[in-house]
Amino acid sequence: MSVKLKGACIFGQSGGPTAVINASAYGIIRTALDSQEITAVYGAYHGIKGVLNDQLFDMNKEDPEELEFLIHTPSSELGSCRYKMKDPDEDDTDYKRILEIFKKYDVRYFFYNGGNDSMDTCNKISKYLKQVDYDCRVIGVPKTIDNDLYGTDHCPGYPSAAKYIATTCMELSKDARVYDTPQITVVEIMGRHAGWLAGASSLATYKGSGPDLIYLPECNFDMKKFDADVEDVYKARNGKVFVAVSEGIHYSDGTFVSEAKASATDGFGHAQLGGLASLLAAHLKEIFNTKVRGIELSLLQRCGSHLASQTDLDEAILVGKTAVLEAIKGTSDVMIALKRTYIGSEYIGEIELLPLSKVANFEKKVPLNWINESRNFVTNDFIDYVLPLIQGQPDIPYEESLPRYARLKKIFVNQ
Amino acid sequence: MSVKLKGACIFGQSGGPTAVINASAYGIIRTALDSQEITAVYGAYHGIKGVLNDQLFDMNKEDPEELEFLIHTPSSELGSCRYKMKDPDEDDTDYKRILEIFKKYDVRYFFYNGGNDSMDTCNKISKYLKQVDYDCRVIGVPKTIDNDLYGTDHCPGYPSAAKYIATTCMELSKDARVYDTPQITVVEIMGRHAGWLAGASSLATYKGSGPDLIYLPECNFDMKKFDADVEDVYKARNGKVFVAVSEGIHYSDGTFVSEAKASATDGFGHAQLGGLASLLAAHLKEIFNTKVRGIELSLLQRCGSHLASQTDLDEAILVGKTAVLEAIKGTSDVMIALKRTYIGSEYIGEIELLPLSKVANFEKKVPLNWINESRNFVTNDFIDYVLPLIQGQPDIPYEESLPRYARLKKIFVNQ
Repeated sequence: MSVKLKGACIFGQSGGPTAVINASAYGIIRTALDSQEITAVYGAYHGIKGVLNDQLFDMNKEDPEELEFLIHTPSSELGSCRYKMKDPDEDDTDYKRILEIFKKYDVRYFFYNGGNDSMDTCNKISKYLKQVDYDCRVIGVPKTIDNDLYGTDHCPGYPSAAKYIATTCMELSKDARVYDTPQITVVEIMGRHAGWLAGASSLATYKGSGPDLIYLPECNFDMKKFDADVEDVYKARNGKVFVAVSEGIHYSDGTFVSEAKASATDGFGHAQLGGLASLLAAHLKEIFNTKVRGIELSLLQRCGSHLASQTDLDEAILVGKTAVLEAIKGTSDVMIALKRTYIGSEYIGEIELLPLSKVANFEKKVPLNWINESRNFVTNDFIDYVLPLIQGQPDIPYEESLPRYARLKKIFVNQ
Repeated sequence: MSVKLKGACIFGQSGGPTAVINASAYGIIRTALDSQEITAVYGAYHGIKGVLNDQLFDMNKEDPEELEFLIHTPSSELGSCRYKMKDPDEDDTDYKRILEIFKKYDVRYFFYNGGNDSMDTCNKISKYLKQVDYDCRVIGVPKTIDNDLYGTDHCPGYPSAAKYIATTCMELSKDARVYDTPQITVVEIMGRHAGWLAGASSLATYKGSGPDLIYLPECNFDMKKFDADVEDVYKARNGKVFVAVSEGIHYSDGTFVSEAKASATDGFGHAQLGGLASLLAAHLKEIFNTKVRGIELSLLQRCGSHLASQTDLDEAILVGKTAVLEAIKGTSDVMIALKRTYIGSEYIGEIELLPLSKVANFEKKVPLNWINESRNFVTNDFIDYVLPLIQGQPDIPYEESLPRYARLKKIFVNQ
C-alpha cells in the first residue's frame, strides 16, 4: 500500500440526514481540497444517484468561507437519497455507469457518508471496481441518528440527536407538569429497531426533569403492563405522567404497536392519521379519562443543529478528514469507526478502521442489561454511555439571531 | 398616591406557560425581596388557586443563587392554573376567601402574571378589595406566547416562541427538502384565534430556509384554494412543499379545519387522533399521492427556553421589576405593557401602564394588511415587527451540557 494515486474524488451523502452530516462533508471537502494527490473534489447531488445521473457539484468552485458554515448547517446539503444497489452479479447496469463516470472524471477516491445501506453500497462498488481492475479507493463514513451501525462505539449524528431529545424532554417535563390537574404526556421518539434515541430521554430524568417511563423496541411491549406502569406513576405523582416511547415498540408477535389494527372498543380505530404518540394518548385517555397529550418529535430530532453536541461535531469532522487522509495513504474498503477510551474519567473518541464487509447489514441494539428489570426505563450504564457524547456547546454562527447556514453555489462540473 | 404601604406581597403565575414567565417571576421576586416596603414575598402555588387554598411558598427562604436560575427555567415554576373567577356580584365566595388570606398574611401587594383571563382576574380582585376598603395594590404582568393581549405592542413569551418557531422551521425546511423525491410537509403551529406564532415561521423563509405557504386564522380558510396553492409550489419547486398553518385556521362559517367532520371521500374520517397537521397531511396525500409529513410543534414551541430571545428575557424581567417598583410608588389597577420605539433603526421596548379594565377580555389579531393578497403568506411588515423581538442569544447556564434549571426549596409559609 501507500502507493501514490493521483485523481479526483467524489463524495456523497446518503440516507436520513443528521445535524452533523454536513460537518463530515466539511471534513472530507476541506481535507481533499488541501491535499496534493486529489486533483478535484466533486460532491454528488443526492448521493449515489448524483453519480449515476452525472450530477456532480464542483467543490473547488465554492467560497472557502461558505464551506466553514457547512459545519453548522443541518440536513444533507448536497441532497440525499435512499437507493439500494442491486447485486452486481444480478444486474451490473449501475456499476458500469459508475465506472463510466469515474473514468470520465478520473475519480480515484470515493467517500460515502451514510448508515447501514450506504456501507453496503460502498462495499459493492469497491468489489466491482476491483473486479474490473479500476484503481479507486473507497471509504465509508458513518452517520445515523439511530446509532445502530455495527462495529463503531457510536455514530456521528446520534450524540446531537440524543442531546436534542434530552434537552427537549427536560423542557417538556416542566411544561407537562405545570397545571394542578392530571395530565399524561406521551412523547414518540425515532428508532424503528433500536432504542438508542428513546433511551437518551433518560438524560432529562437524570437532570431532574424528564420522563417517568421509557419503552424501547429491544423488549416486547405489553399494553396491560404499560397501563399498570402508567397507573403506578399516576398515583405516585399526583396524576402527572410523562412517558417516552420508541416508534418501534412492538408486541411479542413482532407487530408494531403503531400498526395495531382497529377494534371496536380499544380506541385504536383511527390510528392511521396520527402516529404512535397519538394512538397511545387516545388509548390512555380512554382508560384514565383525563387530559392526555401525544407529542411526536418527528424530523425535529434529527435536524436540530442549534442543539448539536460539540463532541459530535468534532468527531463528525474527524471521521471525514480521516477518511481522506487514510485513502491518500492507500487505505481502502474500510469504514472510519469510533472507539471509546477514557483517560481517567475523561472520554476520548478514537478512530478505528473496520473492513466494510464486516459492518454492512448488521444492526446494533441497546444491550438488554442496560434496560431495567421492569422494562420501563434504562439503567445507569446507558447514561454513562451517552452522557460523554453530548458534551460541549458549539459556537454556532448567527445572523440577526437566527442560524447562518452555508450558502453554496452548487455549480455542476459538466455545466 | 405615593403613600407608603408596608406589607407582604403575593405573586402568581397563570395560564399556559412560556419560556420566559419565570424570568418575570424573577423580576418580581428579586425586586420585592430587595424592597423596604414589602415585608414578605409569597409565591402562590398554581396561581390564584394557591391563594384560595392557602398554599403559598415563602420566597424569602429560597437561596438567592437558585433564584437567578429561574431566568432560564422554562414553564411556570410555581405551577399554573386555568381558573375563571366568577363575577363577585353573582358569587363572592372566592373573593371573601382571598380577602381572608390577604388579611391573614397582611398582603398589600398582588402581582399576577398571565394573559387575558388573568388580567380579568386582577381587575375583579382589585375592584372587590376597593369595595370592601382593603388597601392593596394590584398589578397585572403580561405573558402569553399567543401575543393576543390588547394594548401592549407584544407580550413577553411571544418573542421566544417566535424564535423557536423560526429556528425550527429553518431546520425543518432543510430536512424536508433533502431527498430527490417529492415531499409535502405541513407544520402546525399554536394560535387558536391569532396568527402571531404561525406568522413567525416567515422569519425562516426570510433567512432562505422556511415555509412556502403560511395560513393564519385571521383569514377564512378555503380547502380548494389551499390545494391550488400547494399544487403551484409543488410544480415550481420540484415536488417539495413546506406549509405552515395556525392550529386555528377555520372555514368561512367559523368551523375549525381541525374539527372538520368525516365524510366518505375527503379522507377526514379519522381526524380525531391526530391534530390539524395530520389531517391536512392525510388530505394532501390523497390528492398528490406522494410522501407527506404532518408535524405538530405542540408544547415544544412554548417551553423552548434554550432558544429564548435575550430581548424577551430582558423585557420579561423588566415588566416584573416594574410591577413591583410601580406598586411601591402607589400605582395599582394597571397592566405593565410594552411600547415599541426606535432610536434610528434600533428597537427599544419601553414600559407603558395600561388600566386593567382596558386590557381585560380583548384579543389582538394580526392586521389584515400584514397578510398577503393571496392569504397564504405574511408581508414584510410582519417580519419588521417580529425580527427585533427575537434578537440576542442568552448566556444559558449548563451543567454537563444540559440546561441547569432552578432548584427551589418551595417551602410553604404555613408549614
